Amino acid sequence: MPDKYPAGVLLLAVAMSVVAGETVAPAPNGIELPAGYRDWRLIGSSHRTDNNTLRVILGNDAAIAAARAGRTNPWPDGARLVKLVWKDVTHEAWDRATVPGAFVHAEFMIKDSASYPDTGGWGFARWLGQEQQPYGADANFVQECFSCHTPVKDNDYVFTHPAVLP
Amino acid sequence: MPDKYPAGVLLLAVAMSVVAGETVAPAPNGIELPAGYRDWRLIGSSHRTDNNTLRVILGNDAAIAAARAGRTNPWPDGARLVKLVWKDVTHEAWDRATVPGAFVHAEFMIKDSASYPDTGGWGFARWLGQEQQPYGADANFVQECFSCHTPVKDNDYVFTHPAVLP
Repeated sequence: MPDKYPAGVLLLAVAMSVVAGETVAPAPNGIELPAGYRDWRLIGSSHRTDNNTLRVILGNDAAIAAARAGRTNPWPDGARLVKLVWKDVTHEAWDRATVPGAFVHAEFMIKDSASYPDTGGWGFARWLGQEQQPYGADANFVQECFSCHTPVKDNDYVFTHPAVLP
Repeated sequence: MPDKYPAGVLLLAVAMSVVAGETVAPAPNGIELPAGYRDWRLIGSSHRTDNNTLRVILGNDAAIAAARAGRTNPWPDGARLVKLVWKDVTHEAWDRATVPGAFVHAEFMIKDSASYPDTGGWGFARWLGQEQQPYGADANFVQECFSCHTPVKDNDYVFTHPAVLP
């Protein structure tokens, strides 16, 4: 950056770089946004018609290795899953297809049996929208997550079944 | 493998390893199944209600770089996209969600302007099912692909818009 820029411009540039993602706030339970989740690999997908969303589930290397080996009940410590959620919209050139529209949120499940014994060994966290605002007023938000996942307790609290792939 | 196994068992073992995926047949237009496509990264997803399928679109490194830079009209030479397609099934614990069931096929678009001038610069190929049988009786199968993609000519013949992600 040239020397001639005034201090205000420099400050603005720094502020913009911060807003651009270097400092997303942690979830109220202390979980930090996992770095590089956009580069995680495919686990599965879903379409919910109760809230009109499309979802893609990605996993970190440990999760991918577990899924491909069929070791997902329970998932091993170190596995991390993210569910990326978009509002569904009709494709402009194919009106019987829905595709991702506005981004809703990114939901994480982080398997660490020692750290999260009260919630099935899973740490839960969610960041809302493009702004990546952490979800939950305080650390008790995880009770909402855990309650919703309890119906799939027999699948290690995970709704997603890894998609079959050749 | 022990020396005591008879020749027939050894031949069977070789045949099984071939069936297991080392030698998937090329498409009738000569395109080989791209190696490692399961490890490509996320571009988008869709749900089609006309044929009850869920789809996830992944891209190779060149495609991911182009998508994140907004350079997708046209996509650059070297970009490779795969659309992974499953029949949709209702989730057993959430009846207003559909999730991937049986695998249907993997469809590829390979951007190489010099090699495929007659089909928008794209090479098309599809492999069916878990068995990865190449689609098409002869090389003319690409006319079917290209015809179906012509309505999105103004989007470089690609239906998929990269999903918005923070």
